Amino acid sequence: MTSIKALVLNASLKDSSEASHTEALSNEVLETLSKEDVKTETIRLADYNISLGISDDMGEGDEWPQIFKKVKEADILIIGTPLWLGEKSSLATLAIERLYGSSSETMENGQSIFYNKVGGVVVTGNEDGAKHAAASILYGLSHIGFVIPPNVDTYWVGEAGPGPSYMDKEGENSFTKKHIEMLAYNTLHLARLFQEHPIPAKGNLLE
Amino acid sequence: MTSIKALVLNASLKDSSEASHTEALSNEVLETLSKEDVKTETIRLADYNISLGISDDMGEGDEWPQIFKKVKEADILIIGTPLWLGEKSSLATLAIERLYGSSSETMENGQSIFYNKVGGVVVTGNEDGAKHAAASILYGLSHIGFVIPPNVDTYWVGEAGPGPSYMDKEGENSFTKKHIEMLAYNTLHLARLFQEHPIPAKGNLLE
Amino acid sequence: MTSIKALVLNASLKDSSEASHTEALSNEVLETLSKEDVKTETIRLADYNISLGISDDMGEGDEWPQIFKKVKEADILIIGTPLWLGEKSSLATLAIERLYGSSSETMENGQSIFYNKVGGVVVTGNEDGAKHAAASILYGLSHIGFVIPPNVDTYWVGEAGPGPSYMDKEGENSFTKKHIEMLAYNTLHLARLFQEHPIPAKGNLLE
Amino acid sequence: MTSIKALVLNASLKDSSEASHTEALSNEVLETLSKEDVKTETIRLADYNISLGISDDMGEGDEWPQIFKKVKEADILIIGTPLWLGEKSSLATLAIERLYGSSSETMENGQSIFYNKVGGVVVTGNEDGAKHAAASILYGLSHIGFVIPPNVDTYWVGEAGPGPSYMDKEGENSFTKKHIEMLAYNTLHLARLFQEHPIPAKGNLLE
Repeated sequence: MTSIKALVLNASLKDSSEASHTEALSNEVLETLSKEDVKTETIRLADYNISLGISDDMGEGDEWPQIFKKVKEADILIIGTPLWLGEKSSLATLAIERLYGSSSETMENGQSIFYNKVGGVVVTGNEDGAKHAAASILYGLSHIGFVIPPNVDTYWVGEAGPGPSYMDKEGENSFTKKHIEMLAYNTLHLARLFQEHPIPAKGNLLE
Repeated sequence: MTSIKALVLNASLKDSSEASHTEALSNEVLETLSKEDVKTETIRLADYNISLGISDDMGEGDEWPQIFKKVKEADILIIGTPLWLGEKSSLATLAIERLYGSSSETMENGQSIFYNKVGGVVVTGNEDGAKHAAASILYGLSHIGFVIPPNVDTYWVGEAGPGPSYMDKEGENSFTKKHIEMLAYNTLHLARLFQEHPIPAKGNLLE
Repeated sequence: MTSIKALVLNASLKDSSEASHTEALSNEVLETLSKEDVKTETIRLADYNISLGISDDMGEGDEWPQIFKKVKEADILIIGTPLWLGEKSSLATLAIERLYGSSSETMENGQSIFYNKVGGVVVTGNEDGAKHAAASILYGLSHIGFVIPPNVDTYWVGEAGPGPSYMDKEGENSFTKKHIEMLAYNTLHLARLFQEHPIPAKGNLLE
Repeated sequence: MTSIKALVLNASLKDSSEASHTEALSNEVLETLSKEDVKTETIRLADYNISLGISDDMGEGDEWPQIFKKVKEADILIIGTPLWLGEKSSLATLAIERLYGSSSETMENGQSIFYNKVGGVVVTGNEDGAKHAAASILYGLSHIGFVIPPNVDTYWVGEAGPGPSYMDKEGENSFTKKHIEMLAYNTLHLARLFQEHPIPAKGNLLE
């Protein structure tokens, strides 16, 4: 068995000079995966200059291609997003748009390049919107070729209204802790399965 | 000034033999309105046999017409819903479908019968989904002719995962309390405004 | 290899005395599956008396248990829904609520009873809303234990505004035809895979 | 009566060196408003360097403040967005985030600075997603203080799958044409109403 690679795209609006609640939560997922010999990496999207547009490469100054190279190498892709007004962040939306810009690229067998990859999502907010953001992101990934295992939406949100954020409560919420484990193991189980048993190339070729 | 009427359609899955967290919250809105001489009423939708279909009257056994009669008389319509899997309830969805079934009915001036009415929403859950449910319901109301005032989505949800429900925490959350007041006053201010100054019948007739 | 069973829950608001555009589309998926020796069945939800509530059995008069028995036997579950005001139907919402009511039931190994099952969705409308409805339904299924393969949201909608429905255009839209095939084959490929290689019971037990 | 100002924020991913289907549609709304002596302006968001973050001014290099100055002067704000994977664009999401960053600013009377302003939305795509995008944007505006009149979601989308875009079909769809008129007149009617009769400052102050 060759090793599995997991990549987190953290769509926090803050660059890596600041702490990110979303990254604190996604790190817990990656720690669990690391124990199972998965190679893990996190990219803070706000550190990059990602151009607007539906294409794999928007040309001069666009740093998406170096991110996308790592997406192609990953077996597990996890999108991490904060919530603002109950929605995933603009950077998460941008990441989905850029992934969609490569949705017609195929492997040699004619399937989408995203086939046999497994998707998951991590959401944090000080209140409300996690399920809606997760549904949108997981749907986007599924629609372009990723497999969505069961229970791969891990999130933390607080009570209605302003209040504490994830790092203020880290490790206290047993529901979130349980889902960190489920996200890690279910993406891993399925990534391993598709590594040994790729999805047959019948009825699902792009051309 | 003739008096304003406010109607809550409570889309709890439980009938009125059981207590409803959503009703506890919507009652606080109605108490505020009552102090301003608004006539208020709540209908527990689960007490009625509401037929499936996109029509104002689905015929034998359909009890929607008696509910819809009160919608037509109301100046303020508030939909109350619980959250299940981060979505408004099936009964809330049914109520929107039935309202939509009358969306081509017009007043004498050719405007939708819902013009000059004002909409709002009350949502409760033990966790997550309120903004998504509110957006869906308020959009549905706006799309068929209601005016949506600012800040008319009042909700309470708890921290991620299973936990206490609204009545367990009633009156403790200052954000929710503030929004009870905003929902009540903003629906009232605009209902009064449209009673005195109806929306001009220009550019918005259905035929 | 034992045979695979596919079940469609058609959440049309019309009972089976009337033709359903959603069923016309889901039948095309099932025809493809039948050619691959899959046993197929469609349940028109509007033919049944399904009680409101979050439970596997709401007692007297509730006909959900006979539907749920078939869900448990199925390897592939496809929810079919029409669109009203851009949302899945109230019956689709009800089906998700009732499935959620069994989400804490486990197999002997401690996993959710929905593990190793594969989900998909079929949506029809005369206009707009398919992706939103698909995202909501697929998220609901994933959140309670189903695997979501790539490209399992098959839909047809027409141009903005009133206009023709699916059966008026059946077989004409190459995008929809392509996705009928992808839905059928990708649910089948993964159902077979999990039949031979169930998801390991590690890190994903409910208790 | 002083004159009414209408501002479109066009969240196309393309800058103004390229034609925008969304702008073609929003221009039709503005033409209708111009005939009624409304002062109109469109800002192509992709022409500006808008920083990420929840604040009215993110500092050096952030061009949002010059856009936001115009939002504050406008009586009618219309967000225009294309659809990608059934969602509003990342730039539309960014605009909502930045507006939200000023949601605690108040007028002298203590109400949100967005009170008495009226919101609307224009959506174009070659297929599906308009209602979902409209619901999200209108909810966001309502939640921060805008009034949402009836029927202010004007959109055009085509049949499922790739196909023509708005400018290929411009002026052909009577549903879209009708809604251009409704959006223009209903935002205008209500903007004029609130200019003469501002929302009373009772029960809706931020502090």
